[in-house]
Amino acid sequence: MGMTITEKNMARHAGVAEVKAGQIVECKVDAILMNDITFPPALKEFKKIGKPVFDKERIYLVPDHFTPNKDIKSAEQSKIMRDFVRAEGITHYFEVGRMGIEHVLLPEEGLVAPGDMIIGADSHTCTYGALGAFATGVGSTDAGVAMARGKTWFKVPETIKVVLDGKPGKWITGKDIVLELIGRIGVDGARYKAIEYHGTALQYMSMTDRLTICNMAIEAGGKCGVFPYDEITKAYVTGRVKRDFTPITADPDAEYCEEVHIDVSKLQPVVAFPHLPSNTHYITDVKEPITIDQVVIGSCTNGRFEDLQAAASILKGRKVADFVRCIVVPGSQTVYDEAMKAGLIDTFIKAGCAVSTPTCGPCLGGYMGIMAAGERTVSTTNRNFRGRMGHVDSEVYLASPYVAAASAVMGRLAGPEEVQ
Amino acid sequence: MGMTITEKNMARHAGVAEVKAGQIVECKVDAILMNDITFPPALKEFKKIGKPVFDKERIYLVPDHFTPNKDIKSAEQSKIMRDFVRAEGITHYFEVGRMGIEHVLLPEEGLVAPGDMIIGADSHTCTYGALGAFATGVGSTDAGVAMARGKTWFKVPETIKVVLDGKPGKWITGKDIVLELIGRIGVDGARYKAIEYHGTALQYMSMTDRLTICNMAIEAGGKCGVFPYDEITKAYVTGRVKRDFTPITADPDAEYCEEVHIDVSKLQPVVAFPHLPSNTHYITDVKEPITIDQVVIGSCTNGRFEDLQAAASILKGRKVADFVRCIVVPGSQTVYDEAMKAGLIDTFIKAGCAVSTPTCGPCLGGYMGIMAAGERTVSTTNRNFRGRMGHVDSEVYLASPYVAAASAVMGRLAGPEEVQ
Repeated sequence: MGMTITEKNMARHAGVAEVKAGQIVECKVDAILMNDITFPPALKEFKKIGKPVFDKERIYLVPDHFTPNKDIKSAEQSKIMRDFVRAEGITHYFEVGRMGIEHVLLPEEGLVAPGDMIIGADSHTCTYGALGAFATGVGSTDAGVAMARGKTWFKVPETIKVVLDGKPGKWITGKDIVLELIGRIGVDGARYKAIEYHGTALQYMSMTDRLTICNMAIEAGGKCGVFPYDEITKAYVTGRVKRDFTPITADPDAEYCEEVHIDVSKLQPVVAFPHLPSNTHYITDVKEPITIDQVVIGSCTNGRFEDLQAAASILKGRKVADFVRCIVVPGSQTVYDEAMKAGLIDTFIKAGCAVSTPTCGPCLGGYMGIMAAGERTVSTTNRNFRGRMGHVDSEVYLASPYVAAASAVMGRLAGPEEVQ
Repeated sequence: MGMTITEKNMARHAGVAEVKAGQIVECKVDAILMNDITFPPALKEFKKIGKPVFDKERIYLVPDHFTPNKDIKSAEQSKIMRDFVRAEGITHYFEVGRMGIEHVLLPEEGLVAPGDMIIGADSHTCTYGALGAFATGVGSTDAGVAMARGKTWFKVPETIKVVLDGKPGKWITGKDIVLELIGRIGVDGARYKAIEYHGTALQYMSMTDRLTICNMAIEAGGKCGVFPYDEITKAYVTGRVKRDFTPITADPDAEYCEEVHIDVSKLQPVVAFPHLPSNTHYITDVKEPITIDQVVIGSCTNGRFEDLQAAASILKGRKVADFVRCIVVPGSQTVYDEAMKAGLIDTFIKAGCAVSTPTCGPCLGGYMGIMAAGERTVSTTNRNFRGRMGHVDSEVYLASPYVAAASAVMGRLAGPEEVQ
């Protein structure tokens, strides 16, 4: 019996010829990611072991959640990380002002390679499946232990085959596709399963789309999401990834637990209504006006250059509606710089948006755009659980940058075609 | 006996021919400023009176302290302001994304005129003295009452005459001059007094310098700081202030309680060490290396275009030192836009600075750059009291944008001439 991409990856990193779904394996990891929130508890576990770090070049530390420091507590957390980096000589640390949101930053910096196995003490680590890596979120304890051991254990997940066919329409992005998927299978539809993408639509999907799609694997409960290595992957990693790597492809006779087919040419822009990512509606089906207070464009889900470009294409020459705050958060300093050069930041400022330094801030209710009771945000982020971005009586509508920007202009939930 | 600028201003707004220092007067106010922190308690007092606002066009509301909303509480505060603006039809409200730090924004928007009397529920309201206005900080209660009455009472302050002579050297800014003054007279040296500026040095002082100098009047305990109306004032307000105004000049025989003379040609860049703005040292006298963790460039004190230009002149082609975070906060969206067009934001990003949306955040320990115990910040802000920008065991060194930028590059407190 053949293996899926994820099974092959696990077999390779476990140093065995074959693994099967359900089996427990111990795998070497290529890299471990931690951020300002998850590193301090990981360090505590690491110290108990009393060994040095397994590899100073394979521990990626990114203070992105509550930085620039939101308060004294977050400052203390960042300081723990910084002190460790200095003491241990960790090479891949990204200081405030030279960083980005971890899941935007690492692929961009060439620190994720096809065929890699990466664990991260952040649930959206699954993003890197877009490059053909196995990547998944783990708890701080697992990350801390792996810092010393360079390996960790997994139950090999079953794999769902998601076949995306057709050519997406003008306003359809990776965000719409993954929201559609979650809408169909539910927030537990891929629980502890790998999601492997196939189909004729993949040729139309930029790396940005793929990163968004894999980023939200966890919102369906997935262990990971993964795209096959193709010309688009190759173009992205060439010149970026400096080390050798071996991409992994699924065997033709690989076994999948389930197949889901989506004809992306049939999609309309998708919005996940409160309070679950699976509560999806096509924007064209929304008939009652839903007034909004805030729009957030950014995050590890949609904070890349093409995301900002999409938002700017709607906002250019237009104004954010009165009393609506539109917060744009470039995903990294590189994205910020490219967006500035392309005139996107100018478009946002002229439209009346607040442009933030890269941070996870608003997405997890950290800072930089928290809601009061009764307020509504249209957000390009990944979770709309009750209270996620503020008061328990506030609401989050998840959507693409096109829908978010259109909503900012209209002052209500709106699709890009509604903007005059 | 003649009157000082402040006495004349109070006489005019009290509708009497003459006032004397020490006298209690009731004055009409031209405008009242409040922010997201001070407005909610002001509104409470206002409501007790049960009258409408005295003038919808003369209440300036700026949500700048904890916005974009830092947390649920700050979101609720901003919402109180926003709901009031909508209900009352207040014209000068500045939404997130279309705003700036209040004391950068109001002069820039032409909302402050020479000869005005402005009260603000923020201690740095004294900034507007740079334009020849009487402007002072009041409590939320006074602001709330004045919202209904359009007037308030004062004890007429005595006036200190500060004579600035000579031509400032290359690196000497308004910040160095006001820190020198506070160093000489102390943080209570001008307690409940007006500070009126005179001297041959005024011709060399841009509006940016003057705004910085008046901004810190309160750091010497001053009721206000005020510059005479001259060609520099005229150039600044022309085309900007849309309403009629009558500048005020001091009588030649005005009575001053004290005179302070500063030869600005003799100054070196000034740094106020922890924990008082009066604890000043020339940078050239600092012999022991003082390593730093953070630099903040911005605030109502030094967040204007020329301030960013000064910082960028040092940072251009250079890098912020390892492990030092340098946070740049343009004072308003207009400043941000101008700085972007002039290539300053590009310089900051390339140097490794975090560029924030306009906010008071770090200055008052709100968010966007808070310190852990044992950390040090060189900051262009106005207060270095113990715990002002974070933990009680952190330290703030107040300085000009030149010194702040040089320190960011060197990783220690440094003057602009030390940067290679």
